[in-house]
Formats: sequence, C-alpha cells, structure tokens
Amino acid sequence: MATTLAERVLEGDPRAIARAISLIEDEDPASADLVRRIFGRTGRAYLIGVTGPPGAGKSTLVDRLVGEIRSQTAERVGVIAVDPTSPFSGGAVLGDRLRMQAHAQDEGVFIRSMATRGHLGGLARATGDAALVLDAAGTEIIIIETVGVGQDEVDIIRTADVSIVTLVPGAGDEVQALKAGIMEIADIFVVNKADREGADRLVAAVEANLALHPYTGGEWRPPIVKTVATSGRGMSELAAAIAAFRAHSRDAQGARRKTRSEYRLRELVAQRFMAHLERDVLAPGELAAIVDRVAAREIDPYSAANDLLARAGLKAGRT
Amino acid sequence: MATTLAERVLEGDPRAIARAISLIEDEDPASADLVRRIFGRTGRAYLIGVTGPPGAGKSTLVDRLVGEIRSQTAERVGVIAVDPTSPFSGGAVLGDRLRMQAHAQDEGVFIRSMATRGHLGGLARATGDAALVLDAAGTEIIIIETVGVGQDEVDIIRTADVSIVTLVPGAGDEVQALKAGIMEIADIFVVNKADREGADRLVAAVEANLALHPYTGGEWRPPIVKTVATSGRGMSELAAAIAAFRAHSRDAQGARRKTRSEYRLRELVAQRFMAHLERDVLAPGELAAIVDRVAAREIDPYSAANDLLARAGLKAGRT
Repeated sequence: MATTLAERVLEGDPRAIARAISLIEDEDPASADLVRRIFGRTGRAYLIGVTGPPGAGKSTLVDRLVGEIRSQTAERVGVIAVDPTSPFSGGAVLGDRLRMQAHAQDEGVFIRSMATRGHLGGLARATGDAALVLDAAGTEIIIIETVGVGQDEVDIIRTADVSIVTLVPGAGDEVQALKAGIMEIADIFVVNKADREGADRLVAAVEANLALHPYTGGEWRPPIVKTVATSGRGMSELAAAIAAFRAHSRDAQGARRKTRSEYRLRELVAQRFMAHLERDVLAPGELAAIVDRVAAREIDPYSAANDLLARAGLKAGRT
Repeated sequence: MATTLAERVLEGDPRAIARAISLIEDEDPASADLVRRIFGRTGRAYLIGVTGPPGAGKSTLVDRLVGEIRSQTAERVGVIAVDPTSPFSGGAVLGDRLRMQAHAQDEGVFIRSMATRGHLGGLARATGDAALVLDAAGTEIIIIETVGVGQDEVDIIRTADVSIVTLVPGAGDEVQALKAGIMEIADIFVVNKADREGADRLVAAVEANLALHPYTGGEWRPPIVKTVATSGRGMSELAAAIAAFRAHSRDAQGARRKTRSEYRLRELVAQRFMAHLERDVLAPGELAAIVDRVAAREIDPYSAANDLLARAGLKAGRT
C-alpha cells in the first residue's frame, strides 16, 4: 500500500498527496515509511514562510500571493496553513474548502490546513513531512502560513527559504505582541491592510526597529511591502520582493536547509527514543507509576529522567 | 554555591529567586541541581494559567488580578509572563520594571518575564522550573501569563490548576485566531475590554460555542466574566470565579498535576538523551556531518534517526 501511495505521490496525484498528509497528521506509522520512500526526490521546492499576529490577514494574503504566482509562472504552488482553525470557524476542513474555491479551476494549486497534535514537536515534524510530500509531488513553490507566536511555529518560518513577517496597522498592541526575535529574522516585511490609518507610522516603526536591530541574515536589506490583500494591492510588489530575495540568497540557501534538516533530525531522534523507552524498556504502566512518584514529590523530575536513561542502558546525565 | 542559593530560595529571598530563575532561563547546568534541591518543598502553590490572543490586555488583567488577590488575602503572588516582549517594547527587563512599579510597595508580589530559547520544549521546561522556584519560596499563588497560540504555551495553560482564556470584542477575527481546542479547556472565560462595542455579542458567541463544544473538564460550567482591566471593572468577579473553581475542583486537581509532571518528565528525558548522544556517543562534528548527509538527500531523516539510536546502543525503531 505504502509503495503505491509513494508512487502516486511522486506522480503528483492530488488525492494521494491529501492521503499522505492525513497519514502524517495522524502520526500513522506508515507515514515514516512513506517519507523514506519519497525523500530522495525532494529538495527542489522553494519554501516560503509567512507569519504574523492573529488578525493580520495572512490567509487572504497567501491566497492572493498564490494567484499572483500562478498568473506569472507555470510553477505548481502548495499551501500548508498551520492550525488556523477554531471552533468558531467551522474547522480546518471547511476552511480548506472555502479557500480552495478561489483556486478551484486551477490544478496547479494545493491547499491544506494542518492541526497540531499534543505531542512535543509534533507540529514542526508534521509540517516538515507535509512539505516533503508536496515537494516530492513536484510542487515548485510551497507556502507555509502560521501565526508567529509559538516556538515551533517560529522555527518553521525561520528555516524556510524566505521568511515573511506580516504586520497590520492598529492600536500598536499587536506589533508588541509579536514574538521577540522574529523581527530580526524577517527577510521581507508586509504591512497588510495598508489602507488603514497608521500604515505609514507602522512602516516607520519597522524601519526604526531595523536600524536598532539589524537584519541578521547578511547583506540583504529587508524591504517593507505595503499590501491590501483583500483588493490585491501590492501583491505584484510582494511577488517581486520574493523573487529578488530568492536571486540574492541563492548561495545562502544551503545553510538554512541544513538548519532545517538538523531541527528535524533532533526532533525525530528525541521522539523515537521516547517511543523505544515506552515500548521496549518499560513495563506497561511503569511510566505512569514514575509520574505518580514525581507528582507526589517522592522523586524529582531530573533524578527520574536520569533513572529512565539508566533503564534504557545509558549512562545517566552529569547532573 | 548551589546549596546556598537553594537555601536562600527556600527562605523566600527575592534576589535568590531572581537569580535562580535566571539560571533556569540560561539553561545553566546548575539550575537542574537547584530544582532537585528544592523539589521536595514544592507542590503547595496554586497555579493560575492566563492565556488569550495578542492585544487582549492580558498584562493589565494579570496586574489587576494580582492587586485584587493581594487586597483580599495575605497570600504571596508570583507572576511568570511568558515572552510578552518585542523589540518595540524595550524588552522583558524594562517591561518587568514597569509592571513591578504598580506593586513596588508590596513585598508579597514577584513578577518575572521569561523569554523563549531556541531549544525544543525549552520554554515549557523553563516556565515549569521557574514556577517550582516560586513555589519552593513560599509563593501561594502563581500566575502564568502567555499568548495562547503555540503548542508549548497551550500545554502550560492546560496543565495549570485553573485555565483562564481571555478574549476581546473586535472584528471577530481575533477569536478565530485562537488555537483550536483551547476553548474546550478553559475553566473560566474573561471578556476583557467589555466596554467596547460587541462585548455582549462575544459573550453570546462563547456561550453558543460552549453548547456545541462542551467543557471537557467535568461538571463545572465555565463562567464568562466581563472585565475592563484598565479600570478594574469585573476584577472582584474574576477573583470570585477563580475561588469558586478552586473549591469545586479540589478533587480533580491531582489529575492535572500528574499530567503536568508527565509532560515535564517526557521533555527532560528527551532533552537528556540528546545531550548524552552528543556528549558521550558522537565525535565532535559528527552530528553536523549526518545533518549534511540528510540535507544532501544521501540519507532520509528517519533512517538517520534510527542510526543515531543504534549508535547509542539502542535497538533501532520499528520503521
């Protein structure tokens, strides 16, 4: 089954892509096998990370950007929207359907929402694997859209080939709420809803901030693109800024991709070690019993962690 | 040194508390030893988690709540604000200073911001350890304040003794941007800035949502408290709601604390295994070389992860 699914993904079959991403989202063991089968055929897609605070209009911006890219090139575009759902909005599936309608006639566009799981690092891993599926299926441009607050989400964006931070004019509060450090990693700023009052003030604030905290990614000077995504204003400028950064950063791209690979590998190793511990080392219920002892303050968590490493046959940590 | 610091923390010395939290934030190896020394004296504090989208006025709400609690009881209150900083606001230290001014004459209040680190799970671990420090120092009420979007942050809130979700009336967008699943775990809702247009509509929307997606924490019916934190309106109602939930949930509290201990233990084990692998198993530069091979598509990350587990003397995973 997995072989067939991998083959169909490599052929670019949209239903196989959707099925593969569902396996990844469900943390189905078959998904690891799938990624192994397709991995050699990945590495060609260009990854665009789009982040910003809630209410910045990221979904509309990304949808417009997809339209802009598709109107300019024949490249296939995939969108992975990380957890934009809420109980108020009808959930990810309905959201995907609504968003796909704008590109319903376009077979070169694939849009998928991913919800998070409770597992540590699960979101970053699932997003990364979903991007690999799209990549292997021949998607040339992959856009990952996420709110820019959680560490997982920021890691996803900062290891993209280009990182776009979207801001909106407003009470000023929402800019302050952006995660510390995210301003310094933006390759491109977007001031969306630029027809609102305060847009120029926000542009000036971003410029002032760049003077104080310069861009950490080299010679590039991050442009600030004003857009009104609902009307399409500024979208060609944004596409041009992405193209300019892509041309500028061709040599530096390898380093980011290495960082991405390292994050991914570290996550996988940690997750597989925990799985090994629970499956092969501990008796059923044993971890729960240790947790009970920690909760009862009979043992501290650091000593308990060292004990567990020792149980797995490893020398306990230094402290 | 660590013994002295632990002793001073246990005596409730504010400077020792601040120093201990800095060690934790810096991931200083001495912090693990410190936590081990104080752990047996923890478990008494009541943990209040406050989350909500950016711009919901959480800082002001928490500051007012601290004032309300202090006016009612002699209990000491600690606040851990997770990453509320941005380059625009002058950073965590300045923010702490400004926030502390409101409670400058009150020795029973301790406020501390924590920035995130790049490490996987680092934020949750650091926040948890900082709460243990305050707990061991005799802080009876600990408030953890965080934006409710990243998985780490949500895990922090949902394993608190009481989870408060703060919303604001607005374009409606910001509610939709709340993380999926967070509405179901709120023990108490706050509609802040309730003097704004749309406050009653938001209350109705939360009620409608609760009918569709009932509270998952038992018999309790989550109240919706309207506040205007800037003026103090609704703060005594909020304090009363917290007290009511605390009385109601006394029996269920143990289960949440076990979940909290389990998260913590899993994180520590994963982190210590990675440290062991890098320090004791791999040669310097070897992990980087493996990452290079993954980035070059010579080996897939799942196979590389299995190889690393095998190098640590463990049987590789199943797939």
